[in-house]
This record gives sequence, C-alpha cells and structure tokens, in this order.
Amino acid sequence: MNDLEESIARVIAGPERKSRMISEKEKLTIAYHEMGHALVGTTLEHTDPVHKVTIVSRGQALGWTMSLPIEDRYLVSKAELVDQLAQILGGRCAEDLILGEDNITTGASDDIRKATNLARKMVTEWGMSDKLGPLTFGERPEMVFLGRDLGEQRNYSEGIASEIDQEVHQLVADAFQRAKKVLRDREHVLRALASRLVEVETMDAPEMKRIIDEAEARNGAASSNGSGPVADAPPPPPDPEAVPPAEAAAGA
Amino acid sequence: MNDLEESIARVIAGPERKSRMISEKEKLTIAYHEMGHALVGTTLEHTDPVHKVTIVSRGQALGWTMSLPIEDRYLVSKAELVDQLAQILGGRCAEDLILGEDNITTGASDDIRKATNLARKMVTEWGMSDKLGPLTFGERPEMVFLGRDLGEQRNYSEGIASEIDQEVHQLVADAFQRAKKVLRDREHVLRALASRLVEVETMDAPEMKRIIDEAEARNGAASSNGSGPVADAPPPPPDPEAVPPAEAAAGA
Amino acid sequence: MNDLEESIARVIAGPERKSRMISEKEKLTIAYHEMGHALVGTTLEHTDPVHKVTIVSRGQALGWTMSLPIEDRYLVSKAELVDQLAQILGGRCAEDLILGEDNITTGASDDIRKATNLARKMVTEWGMSDKLGPLTFGERPEMVFLGRDLGEQRNYSEGIASEIDQEVHQLVADAFQRAKKVLRDREHVLRALASRLVEVETMDAPEMKRIIDEAEARNGAASSNGSGPVADAPPPPPDPEAVPPAEAAAGA
Amino acid sequence: MNDLEESIARVIAGPERKSRMISEKEKLTIAYHEMGHALVGTTLEHTDPVHKVTIVSRGQALGWTMSLPIEDRYLVSKAELVDQLAQILGGRCAEDLILGEDNITTGASDDIRKATNLARKMVTEWGMSDKLGPLTFGERPEMVFLGRDLGEQRNYSEGIASEIDQEVHQLVADAFQRAKKVLRDREHVLRALASRLVEVETMDAPEMKRIIDEAEARNGAASSNGSGPVADAPPPPPDPEAVPPAEAAAGA
Amino acid sequence: MNDLEESIARVIAGPERKSRMISEKEKLTIAYHEMGHALVGTTLEHTDPVHKVTIVSRGQALGWTMSLPIEDRYLVSKAELVDQLAQILGGRCAEDLILGEDNITTGASDDIRKATNLARKMVTEWGMSDKLGPLTFGERPEMVFLGRDLGEQRNYSEGIASEIDQEVHQLVADAFQRAKKVLRDREHVLRALASRLVEVETMDAPEMKRIIDEAEARNGAASSNGSGPVADAPPPPPDPEAVPPAEAAAGA
Amino acid sequence: MNDLEESIARVIAGPERKSRMISEKEKLTIAYHEMGHALVGTTLEHTDPVHKVTIVSRGQALGWTMSLPIEDRYLVSKAELVDQLAQILGGRCAEDLILGEDNITTGASDDIRKATNLARKMVTEWGMSDKLGPLTFGERPEMVFLGRDLGEQRNYSEGIASEIDQEVHQLVADAFQRAKKVLRDREHVLRALASRLVEVETMDAPEMKRIIDEAEARNGAASSNGSGPVADAPPPPPDPEAVPPAEAAAGA
Repeated sequence: MNDLEESIARVIAGPERKSRMISEKEKLTIAYHEMGHALVGTTLEHTDPVHKVTIVSRGQALGWTMSLPIEDRYLVSKAELVDQLAQILGGRCAEDLILGEDNITTGASDDIRKATNLARKMVTEWGMSDKLGPLTFGERPEMVFLGRDLGEQRNYSEGIASEIDQEVHQLVADAFQRAKKVLRDREHVLRALASRLVEVETMDAPEMKRIIDEAEARNGAASSNGSGPVADAPPPPPDPEAVPPAEAAAGA
Repeated sequence: MNDLEESIARVIAGPERKSRMISEKEKLTIAYHEMGHALVGTTLEHTDPVHKVTIVSRGQALGWTMSLPIEDRYLVSKAELVDQLAQILGGRCAEDLILGEDNITTGASDDIRKATNLARKMVTEWGMSDKLGPLTFGERPEMVFLGRDLGEQRNYSEGIASEIDQEVHQLVADAFQRAKKVLRDREHVLRALASRLVEVETMDAPEMKRIIDEAEARNGAASSNGSGPVADAPPPPPDPEAVPPAEAAAGA
Repeated sequence: MNDLEESIARVIAGPERKSRMISEKEKLTIAYHEMGHALVGTTLEHTDPVHKVTIVSRGQALGWTMSLPIEDRYLVSKAELVDQLAQILGGRCAEDLILGEDNITTGASDDIRKATNLARKMVTEWGMSDKLGPLTFGERPEMVFLGRDLGEQRNYSEGIASEIDQEVHQLVADAFQRAKKVLRDREHVLRALASRLVEVETMDAPEMKRIIDEAEARNGAASSNGSGPVADAPPPPPDPEAVPPAEAAAGA
Repeated sequence: MNDLEESIARVIAGPERKSRMISEKEKLTIAYHEMGHALVGTTLEHTDPVHKVTIVSRGQALGWTMSLPIEDRYLVSKAELVDQLAQILGGRCAEDLILGEDNITTGASDDIRKATNLARKMVTEWGMSDKLGPLTFGERPEMVFLGRDLGEQRNYSEGIASEIDQEVHQLVADAFQRAKKVLRDREHVLRALASRLVEVETMDAPEMKRIIDEAEARNGAASSNGSGPVADAPPPPPDPEAVPPAEAAAGA
Repeated sequence: MNDLEESIARVIAGPERKSRMISEKEKLTIAYHEMGHALVGTTLEHTDPVHKVTIVSRGQALGWTMSLPIEDRYLVSKAELVDQLAQILGGRCAEDLILGEDNITTGASDDIRKATNLARKMVTEWGMSDKLGPLTFGERPEMVFLGRDLGEQRNYSEGIASEIDQEVHQLVADAFQRAKKVLRDREHVLRALASRLVEVETMDAPEMKRIIDEAEARNGAASSNGSGPVADAPPPPPDPEAVPPAEAAAGA
Repeated sequence: MNDLEESIARVIAGPERKSRMISEKEKLTIAYHEMGHALVGTTLEHTDPVHKVTIVSRGQALGWTMSLPIEDRYLVSKAELVDQLAQILGGRCAEDLILGEDNITTGASDDIRKATNLARKMVTEWGMSDKLGPLTFGERPEMVFLGRDLGEQRNYSEGIASEIDQEVHQLVADAFQRAKKVLRDREHVLRALASRLVEVETMDAPEMKRIIDEAEARNGAASSNGSGPVADAPPPPPDPEAVPPAEAAAGA
C-alpha cells in the first residue's frame, strides 16, 4: 500500500495492529467472513468493484474489504442498494454456509446493524417499499444542546410500525438469500479465496481475479468429470507463488 | 439569469456548483426527475406556473424546478394542495415511469418528506380529511431553552393514529396516481423535455412551451398514423437551435 | 373606530395592515369565512353579541369577528360552550357551503385548533361528556425551569383515550352540523353580508342588522313567489347607500 | 367572622373579593353549587360537619363550603373517602339536578379533578379496589433539580391501566349517584338553602340547620296533603328574619 | 427501651411523638393493624422473630412492629420472601377482618407499596416466577446529574407486561390469603393482643407470648365447650397486671 | 494465590472479606451455587476452563467461579454463547435442584441479569435468532452530557417486541434445561464438590478434577451394584487430606 492509501485507511479505521495475536481458527473465520463480502461484491452487478481484502486488524476491525466506486456518485438507485445489502450480509452468510450456524460469531454485529439501518432507510426515508409507498415515517428531532440525535421519534400508528418491520425484514431476508445463492453457487471459489487469504493476509483485485479464475477452471474440470454437488469439494491448496502484499487496506 | 434572480437563488439554495462532475447517467436521471416536477406542474390546474428548470447543482440540490405564484397569496385551498402534492411527487414518479422501479433513487427523499408532511398537515392541522373532520391532532410543545421543536406529541388514541396514517397514505397515493396519469399521458413530452434538458442544463418557461408544442405536434402526427400506444416512442432528437440559458434558476 | 377601540385591537391582534395586497378572490373567501362566524354568532342563542366584522388584516389575522359579552362572566355553561363551538366552526363551514369542499383553505387552522381544544376540555377537564362522566383525564406537569407546559401527560388507558377521541369528535361534528344548518337556512343572508363586507371591508352591528333585515325581507318576498329552494339564489346586489366604517375592529 | 377565622381563610383562599360584580344568574348557580356540597356533607354519615357556606368570592373561588373535622385524624377510612367523594361531587350534581344538564358550568372543574385524584388514589395507592387488590400501581419519580413531580410513570400493562380506569370511573359514578339521591330526596331543602344563600351570601351551621328544619316541616305538611313527587315544588320564599352573617367563611 | 434501642429507633423512624393526640378509635385501628403484622410474623415459619410492637407514634409512623433477624443474612430465599409478603400485608388484613372492609384505612399505603415492590422484584429481578423464568425484566437507567432513579424503563412487550402484572398480583393475593388464614384461625389471639396493646401501647416479645398463651388456653377451653366458630368471640378483658414497657420500639 | 492473582482479583471484585460471618446454611447454599457454575462450565464443550472456585466473599460477591480462556479471543461463536448461558444459569439451577424451589435465593439476581442481557444481545444485536434474522433491534442513543446510557430506545413494533421476548425467553429456558441436565446427570459429583468446598472454601482446578474423578469412580461402583437413580445418594464424606488453598480466587 502506498503512503496515500495508508493515510486514508488510518483515518477511516485507525492504525494497523499487526501485533494482535489472533488464533488460526479465528483467522480462518475472518477470512471466510471478508471473502463473503468480497465475493458477493464481485459477483453482483450493481456493487462497487472490490479493491482489496485483508485480515490484518486495523483499529476495531479484525479484517476488511475495500470497495471503491468508479466515479463520483450523487444518487443511489434501489438496485444498487439491494446489491449493497447483499454484500454487507455476505460476511455472516459465508460463516453460516461454510462453518455452520453454531459457528456464526459476534463479529457480524456491525454488518447487521448497517444492513438493518440501510433497509430501514429504504422503507422509511426513501420511499422504496411498494406497500408503504412514497412516504417518510418518523421524525428525528435534534437536540442542539446535546450535539446529538436522540433516536427516531415515532409519529405513526402501531399498524404502520408493524408494516415497516415486515418490509425491513423482507429486504434483509431477501438480501441474505441472494448472498447465500452467490456463495453457494461459487462455494469452491469462496474456499479458494479464504484459504489463500489466511496465508497472504491481504489480497488485491488482480490477485483475487487470478484465484477466482483458477478455481473456476478447476471446478469446471471437476464438474465435467461428474455430476455431484461441488459444495463439499476441499479448498484448493494454497498457491505458493502468491506474494503477500506489503500492507493491508481499508474496507467494509 | 439576471443579478436579482441569482441573488434569490443563492439565498434559497446556496451557490451554484458547476464544477461538480456528474455522470451522464445521473444527469439523465436528474433531468427526468426535474421534468417530472415541471410537467406535472405545467399540466395541472391549481399549481403555480413553472418558471425555470435546471440540472445545474446548487447547494445540496442536484437540480431544481422553480415555480412562482402570479400574485401574493395568504390562503391555500385544498385543490391547490392536492395539485402541489402531485407536483412534489412528479420527480420520483418520472424516475419510476421512465427508468423503471429498480432505478428509482435516493434523490427523492426530500420530495417524499415534503409530500408526507404536507399531507399530514392537511389531515391533522387543516381539517381537510372528511373522515377525521375539522379537528386538529397532536401538540407541538416548544422547548424554549433548546430553541427547537421536539416533534409532535401524540394526544390521541391508537385508533385515531391509524386513521391519520390511512388518510395521509391515501392523499399521497392519490397524488402519485395523478402525477403518473399526467406523465403517462404525456410521456413523449416528458422524454422530449428531459432529453433537451440534458443538453442545455437549464430551461425557462418559453423554451419548455416550445418543446412541449413540438412534441405534441409530432405525437399528434404519429398518433394519427397508427393506433398503438405512444409510451414506447423514442425521445425526440435534441433540438440544435435551442440556446442554453446563461444561468440556472431555483426551484422545487 | 375610536381611539380606545383601536388601542384594544392593536394590543390583541397587532397593528392594522391596510397595505397588504390581497386578491379579490381571497377577499371574498375571507368575507364568507368571517360572516360565517358572525352569522352563526348572531343566530344562536347562547353566544355573545357580534360587535364588528372586518376583512382588514391586523397582525397575523386576515380578518376577524369581534364578539363582546354583555356583562362580566365567571362561569361558562355547557349550552354556551356548544354554541361557541358552532360559531368557531362557522368560518370553515361557510367556505365549505358556498365555495365548495375543494376551495376550503388553510385559513381555518386556528379555528379548528381552538374548537378541538375547547371540545377536548369539555370532555377531559369539565366533565361534560355523559359517557365519560365527571372525571378529569390527563395531567399537565409544569416544568418550571422551562417556563412552559410540556403538553398533556396521559394517565389513562388506550380504551379511555379512544372514548375521549370519539366524544371530542362528536362534539365538533355536532357543532359543525349546527353551524351548517344555520348557514344553509340563511344562505341568502350570508351571501348578502359577505358581498357587502367585500365592499365596505368593516361592518358594525347596526349595519349587519340592516342587511340581514333587507335580505330576509327580499327572501320572504321571493319565497312567497315560489316554492323552490333558495340556496342557489344569487347574492343581493351591493347596497350603494351603506357607508363603510372608518376603521376595522378586532374579533374572533 | 372573627379575626382568626378571617386570617385562616385569607391564608387558604386569598383575600375576599366583595367588589366582584357577579350577575344574579351566576349567583344562583353558585348558591346551588355550594349548597350541593353542603347538603350532601350534612346528610351523609362519614363527612366532617359543615361549618359555613358562602358565595362571597375569595381569591380564585366564587364560593365555598367550609367543613371542619371534630378532632385530629391520622387515618381515613374507605367509608369516609366514599362520602367525601359524594360531597365533592355534590356541587356539580346540584347544578345538574336543578338547572338542567345544559346549564352545568365550568365552575366544577376543580371539584372533578379533586374527585378523580381521590378515587385514583383509593385504587392505585391505598389498595381499596377489590378487583385490583392491595397493590400499588405507578411510580412517581421525583426530579429534584426541578423541585416538582413529573406525573405518574406507568409501570403496569395496558390491561391493568384499563382496569384502573374502570374502577376509578365506578367510584366516581357511584359517588355521583349517592350525591344525586341525597339531593333529589331533599330537593325542597336544597332549594330553600340556595334561595336563602343568594340573599344572605354567607350562612353558618345553626342558620343552615334552622332552614333545613323549616323546609322539612313545610315539606312534611305538603307531602301529607298529596302523593305526588316533591321534586318540582317551588323554592320556599326567602325568610326575611334571617340575618346575614357579617363575613363569609372558607370551604371546599 | 435502653439507650441503644432508642438510638436505633430514632435513626430509622425519627423521634417519638408521645404528644400526638390520637383518638381511641384510631388507636384501636392502629393496634389491630400492628398486631396483624406481629401475629402473622409470629405464626409463619420463615419470618424473623417479632421483637416489639408499639402504637406510640414515631416520625411519620403511627405504630410499628420490630422484627429482628437472629443472625446476619446475605441471601433471602423464596420461602422467606413469601412469608415476608404475608407479614407486610398482615396489617391491612387485620383491619379488613376485624373492622370490616368499609373501615380499612389509608394507613396501609406504605405496606402495600412495600408488598408490591417486593413481589415485583421476585418476578422481575430474582427470577422467582415459574411462568416468566430466570430472566430479568426492565432497566433502571441512572441519571447521575439528578442523583436519582427515574423509574423502571420497560424493555419488554405488552404481553410480558401483562404476565408480570398477573404474577405480581398472584403473589400478593396469595400472601394476603395466607395472612387472612393465620388471622382468622387465631382471631381470638389477635383480639386479645390488640386489646392489650391499646392499654399498654408498647409490648415486647415475652409479653406477647404470655398473652397468646392465655388466649389460646381460654380459647381451647371455650372450644371444648361447644362446636361453633370462635371468630365472633369477644376480646379477652385487658390484663391489669401487665406493665407497659417504658418505651416504644421500631418495626415494620 | 500468588501476588499477581490476588491483585487481579482485588481489582475485579474488591478486597477479600474473610471477616464476614456467614452461617453454615448460607455457606452450603453458596457452595452449591458456585459449584453449579463450575460443574456446568467443566462439563460443556465450549466454555472456558474453570480455574478456581471459592466461597470466600470478596467485595459484593459471596462466592465466585473463575474461568479463564486459553488464548485471546476476538470473536465469540453462537455455540460458545449458548454454553456460557448455561454456565451462568448453573448457579441458580444447582440451588433449585439440590435445595428445592422454595430455597432458591436472591443471590442469583446478578446471574439472571447477565443471562438475560446476553440472550437479548444474541437476538437483537448479533442476529442469532433464526426467527428474527440478521437484523438489529433498538437504538441506544448516548447522552453525552450525562456520561451514561439511557437504556434501549425501541424502534420496532409491538409484534417484534413480543417475538424478541419469546426468543430471549427460549434461549434462557433452553440454557437452564441444559444446565439442569448436566447437574442432574452428575448430581453425585455436584454434591461431592459442594461438600468439599464448604470445608476448604477455595478450590483450584486440579483439586476439582480429583474430587470429580473420585465421585465418578464411587458412583460407577455404586451404579454397577444397582439400577436405581443416584440422585438421592448422600454426598461423599469430606476428604480429610485436602488442604484448603491459602487464598480465594475471582470468578463468575
């Protein structure tokens, strides 16, 4: 990472913490989590391109995936938001799919808060629910003397509150299913990426692409050899030639 | 725009931001959005005349439509409010109609907040709902020491809260349908106006009128040639003679 | 208006604003609105006598009707409150009856707030609802350090809240119907009064009485000529002899 | 009234306001109201003896009834509270009975607030409702820095809130019926007392007793002459011998 | 009472108020109330031994019963809490049983608040309700700058609120029934104790025991003479030999 | 305990309080409570190893169980949380199982608060409820000027509140059942451990292991001799050779 990237990452997420001793088991969980974000982000149509993925801690984060937009944007479409939701949930989804429900962790709490808030805004501020229509719901009075927001103030009935909850739940549940479909369809790729990430700790876009292509090729070959599901295929062996990037980068 | 207009616009919306780099795709979305406001405003009976439409950013706004009343007014009638609601929702409605639901954007959040607040006032402060009658609902205690309003305080039952929600929803839904009818009936005009706005960035009332007349004429001719729907007719080619106004103007 | 009257009016409602340019259409609306108050007040039994009516703006008000009690009073009876409610709603009621529902305006918002608060007090503070009985509902804790009231604090169940809402609604709806009956029965008088008020801008009690008597006489004659309803009778021509009072007076 | 009595009355209710010009109609209403309190208080078993009744204004009060306990008391029994409730409601009840429901006034608002609060305490603080049992309901957090109470804080479910409302309503409704029974049974006495009070303005216990005895005697005679109800019997003529007390006294 | 006892009592309940003039009727009520606490406390298994009972006022209290644990305790069991509840309600229960429901007084308000709070804690803080299980309900945010607690903040649904109410009600109702059973079964003892307390004003444990034994003996004899219920047996005559203790003691 | 251990324990839980006089009965209750935590923690798969158990008071705690993780951890899995819940509830569960429901104590209030909060976070912050999905529920606005949290602010409907309550209840109830199964299956071990703890007051991991092994051996022998349940088997006699550790250690 060059000086500029390092500066940006430091400002957004805090200093790198290479000294943290993280167990191998946790590293693997983090790698699957981050690659869940990255692979969903790479696969879906309306997400920003993934730039870097890392499992080197920085500030509070144990790992992150950095996605960068290609150009400045002032508007976000519903299609983009729906794909963003899926990418945000891709981390937890990968843990669930690969490690099993018992092994999902508290590490996804930030993601699910972000996803919930985003889905809630789609419904209550951006008028993106067909059922509730182009209306806003709730007020956010500002308390100047506190310098902070006191949370949403409900100005609607219990019936609307319940419809909002259902719509928000539906958006999140749909996004989780979309993430799951992506990760299940490309499970061999996910395993290859995560395996590699444990070794190299930080991966940039070209490296990701190389590993994806290799995995797809291997899988295509494997698939042509038989008709069974590929979900249980072992992770590809680590690629000894891959050179770990010098520094980790910031991400979601 | 003369100096006086520029001054007013600067006070209301902030300085122009010609330097913002907005992608072609976003420009088109903004053009449809603004022309949605403008065409609904021009078509309906009780709205103020549209003065200028622009997609040059100013302050927070990516574009705007300036409507000016013909004379000072102290009273607003229910008929005027209902048309205002439709005009406010015309922007999102145009995005939805032309670009499809997946491409509606976060850009309408201000509009739908305005529409919701207006419809809510009609029901809870101005006694304009037949069902709820000439009563007010809710108190707004002022917190002097904060210098701000703490949001509405509910002083009615859940049953009334639910009726208010239904009436507000109905007003907004009806207004959206009225906007949609206007824009669907005149879709070829909307396309012609938006196409042109992308080129010239700012359009005043006479220019709008000219383009509308041309589009109507072309469409009349086209319609007389066949019986199919005109909704899918391609936008008219940009008019090379149109001179872009020197400066953009303030609007809704 | 003599100096004393002017002083009182100035203290209550602020300075006269003869300079406000109000359109003819709005003047007519305001005239019907004020004469709605005045005619209901004049017709019902338990209201204070109407003293003056004006459509000259003063402070925030676009027009007003001044009613004065004959003697000091310390108690207000239910019968008086019920007539007061009808008088307060007479303005909006006249707009609705003469101009049609589409042309009711935001100008009645103060009236309907007053009516709602009055009806609410009858039910929750003065024990005037048979259904809810001689009890009070709600507390109004004072926040001394704010110097203001924080709105009612509910100390009753949702069931009671709903009954209160129904009783308040019923009181207001009944009062609106009583106002409507008065105005419909005397529609020719209302039209005559409003027509005249547009011309003279301010009218005192004797002048009102003269116009009412004339209109009644004309209508009696007209009625004796046929059996059709008089509701659609054209307003009487303005009376050229009437002298406009020199100054406008304060009112409800 | 001696100097001590005057001092006490002044401290409790403020200075006498003999200068207030109260209409004859209002005086009669006030007299019935106060004698409603006094007669219920005199008739029921567990109330304190009535000491004086007056319609001379003092501070905010337009009239009052002074009841004094015979000895110091530290405990109040349910039977006493139930009779107190009836006495408090006796004022409004007399207005309703004699003047008719249309003529009940805003003057009872303090009484019904007191009655509601008392009944509420019986149910929520003193465990006197069989249905709700010996429990307390609600907390009253003190805000020291405000020096005031912020109203009850609900710590129970909506179901309990509804039961509390029903029990409080029942207590008040029963008390009103008890007051009504007393006043209806002794309507001739009430009329005699109120008539006399309008003349003398202030009445002490011996005077009250004399008038009650006379009215009972007259009524006994009248009743023995026929079998019809006495409710509509005209008030007895004022007694010219009665000497008005020099000064008015404090009361409920 | 020795100096140490007096000091403790003074700190807990304030100075003795021998000068308060309390009527004989109230003294009897207080005596039954206190002996209700004391007899339930003496009869049930898991309560602390009763040390002294008094009807000499001290601070706010009109009388009290002092129970002292035999040894320091750090844990309180469900069985102990259930018996404590019954003892707390024993005062009101005795009033109800002996004097009749009409004569229950406001004097029990502290007891029923204590009982409600205790039962509520059993359910919401100590996990002692089978139905609600080993969970806590509600948060108590501290407002440091106020130096006080703002009451419980509900963090559960209406359904749970209702279950809590039912469980709390059940605990209190059961405890009241247990107290009632104790007092009804030993009504002759209760009458003997209260009678004696009115005379001597303060009673210690040995004196209580002596009177209980005498009453039981008398009752045993009386019972053996017939089969009728003993509930209506007259109170035993006061024992002239009993020496009133020099000073009153602190209690519940 | 060495100096370092003592320092840590002092910081976490406060100074040791050997001087507290705790009755034998309470000591036994505390011993069962702590060994309930310790045995569940030792038996389940995903808990941290138990390091020490003590019934020597320290600060507010009457006893504690110290569990230490083997390595630093940054993520906690659902399986670990579920086992943690069972360990937290193991104390109350042991009281209930061995001493009977009547003898459960207030000593578990901290445990059940911890368990409730943990289960609540699993459902509302960590997305670990299948029914509610990967969403967060509730906001925690910070009041900077207070320096504290004001409790959760509900931003969801009553329906969701009820589902949250059910899920939280289910998690706690399941954990309690798991703890109960462990303790019932190993009741002879629990009795042996608690008996010994009463004597030695503090026990470390090797000592615990020795007693568990002995009890299992004895029980194996006993079981092989008959088929009856072992639940009522008497506690093993205290082991005279066991040396009580010099100092007590910190724990949950």
